[in-house]
Amino acid sequence: MNLATQNGVATFDLHAYLEARTKQVNGFFEQWMASRSEGVLAQAIRHLLLPGGKRFRPVLAIAAAEAVGGRAEQALPIAAAVELIHTYSLIHDDLPCMDDDDERRGQPTVHVAYGEAIAVLAGDALQAMAFEVLTRRHEDVSIEALLATAHDLARAAGDLNLVGGQADDILFGADDVDAARLESVHRRKTAALIAVAIVGGARLAGADVLTLQRLQRFGECMGLAFQIADDLLDETSEEVCSSVRVLGVAAARARCEELLAQAFDEIAELGECGAALRALAEFAVRRER
Amino acid sequence: MNLATQNGVATFDLHAYLEARTKQVNGFFEQWMASRSEGVLAQAIRHLLLPGGKRFRPVLAIAAAEAVGGRAEQALPIAAAVELIHTYSLIHDDLPCMDDDDERRGQPTVHVAYGEAIAVLAGDALQAMAFEVLTRRHEDVSIEALLATAHDLARAAGDLNLVGGQADDILFGADDVDAARLESVHRRKTAALIAVAIVGGARLAGADVLTLQRLQRFGECMGLAFQIADDLLDETSEEVCSSVRVLGVAAARARCEELLAQAFDEIAELGECGAALRALAEFAVRRER
Repeated sequence: MNLATQNGVATFDLHAYLEARTKQVNGFFEQWMASRSEGVLAQAIRHLLLPGGKRFRPVLAIAAAEAVGGRAEQALPIAAAVELIHTYSLIHDDLPCMDDDDERRGQPTVHVAYGEAIAVLAGDALQAMAFEVLTRRHEDVSIEALLATAHDLARAAGDLNLVGGQADDILFGADDVDAARLESVHRRKTAALIAVAIVGGARLAGADVLTLQRLQRFGECMGLAFQIADDLLDETSEEVCSSVRVLGVAAARARCEELLAQAFDEIAELGECGAALRALAEFAVRRER
Repeated sequence: MNLATQNGVATFDLHAYLEARTKQVNGFFEQWMASRSEGVLAQAIRHLLLPGGKRFRPVLAIAAAEAVGGRAEQALPIAAAVELIHTYSLIHDDLPCMDDDDERRGQPTVHVAYGEAIAVLAGDALQAMAFEVLTRRHEDVSIEALLATAHDLARAAGDLNLVGGQADDILFGADDVDAARLESVHRRKTAALIAVAIVGGARLAGADVLTLQRLQRFGECMGLAFQIADDLLDETSEEVCSSVRVLGVAAARARCEELLAQAFDEIAELGECGAALRALAEFAVRRER
């Protein structure tokens, strides 16, 4: 437990927690990629994966495992797999035929650096790699839990969720999107993958069904709040599925806080064990990028 | 056993076998897709998947399951998964930034019919769907076998094989490719997926390790022969990794026959039970499209 003392009250030290867990995730990817080839495709795969972002989803998976009494190592298969899926989706989203972005995290996007064909392939390879990581035998995790988590990830990543939400995002015109459709896109495009990180982390650590159901609802609320917070940070965005465009700033803020409160409620029973998850949810919603 | 009598000798009736098994695979996909939405993405997913091609890979998976004493139903998860991966790879290969093909199987390609962004997403969704199908619990199959097969498929589909071979195919110049590199590309781009169909089908049906090893080698030889046969059917192709361009027609034909003979050797021990696999291998190599 990372507890720091503030005004005599024990508070969760999120900064230290994030630093330690991010390092663990980065270490995993460094080691994982060290066994791969050195060719152009491998370079394109490493381009966005190895510098990495906040590693928010993998850290959530680890926090969920720890919240149910498990260890970080047990969550690594789903932590890594979700990040690999997230990374592939960013590469494909950036393509000229999609959002046509030249830069991400201050670097040229993969298709700018390696060409479109290799960017498509790097994304394709990262998706396969997610399932490769997640279906390896792992001495501390039951094969039932691995198979169920791989199934959940496949559903979260495919047409039912991530890809389906992205397709709607592309296909909807500005007049098509009301609050309900907005939430449906966000639920599939953002919340489903966050929820599978959390539920998967807990499942690999041996959590019971009731706890998994609570964490599923926690993850969905948090994922939706995360997306609204993202939209609020990019207030002037004219994107069709921006919460600010559809709801306005005030209503988006209110919905975000409502979802965060609901998320907290869902895991109230975890008590002190839920400290990291609560701190991460709050960070996701109140962060400034 | 589909046996027909030709000049008094019992021969395997491949035509009847292919028809029955293809129907079974098509039925599976019809039913599977019936539960999905009716939106544009789902239409794009159905576009190439539902008319389908020869269903050669799924039929191989089923034949392998039957060769080891199992039933077709046990092989369906990997049969379907391999076809989903194959279909996604065709959609992405056809993209303007890759081979830029307008037609496939006499129809407009997915990006011509639905636009590039939806074609990228349809391919992405099909890959996820492959792992969704393969990681479902299945009463007649052990979870160990499902997990191991999902892992094999992930390795066959990713940077180590399918995607890696495709990347080399794009990156190599004409002067880079000798016989060894040609075979390396074909092994990863074509043979690995065919081998995983065969080994997976047998594994889900409960085959022992020794049999799986034999079937792995059978699949690799057959997959390589299949690719050379494909190149021979498109003799004038100037593609960098065409067997005809690199080896010449005579040497390509000889290598193809050599691989077929080796494939037969690998499964000699299966005896009569290997009749469908042998007939399919022969068909793959001697077919006229």
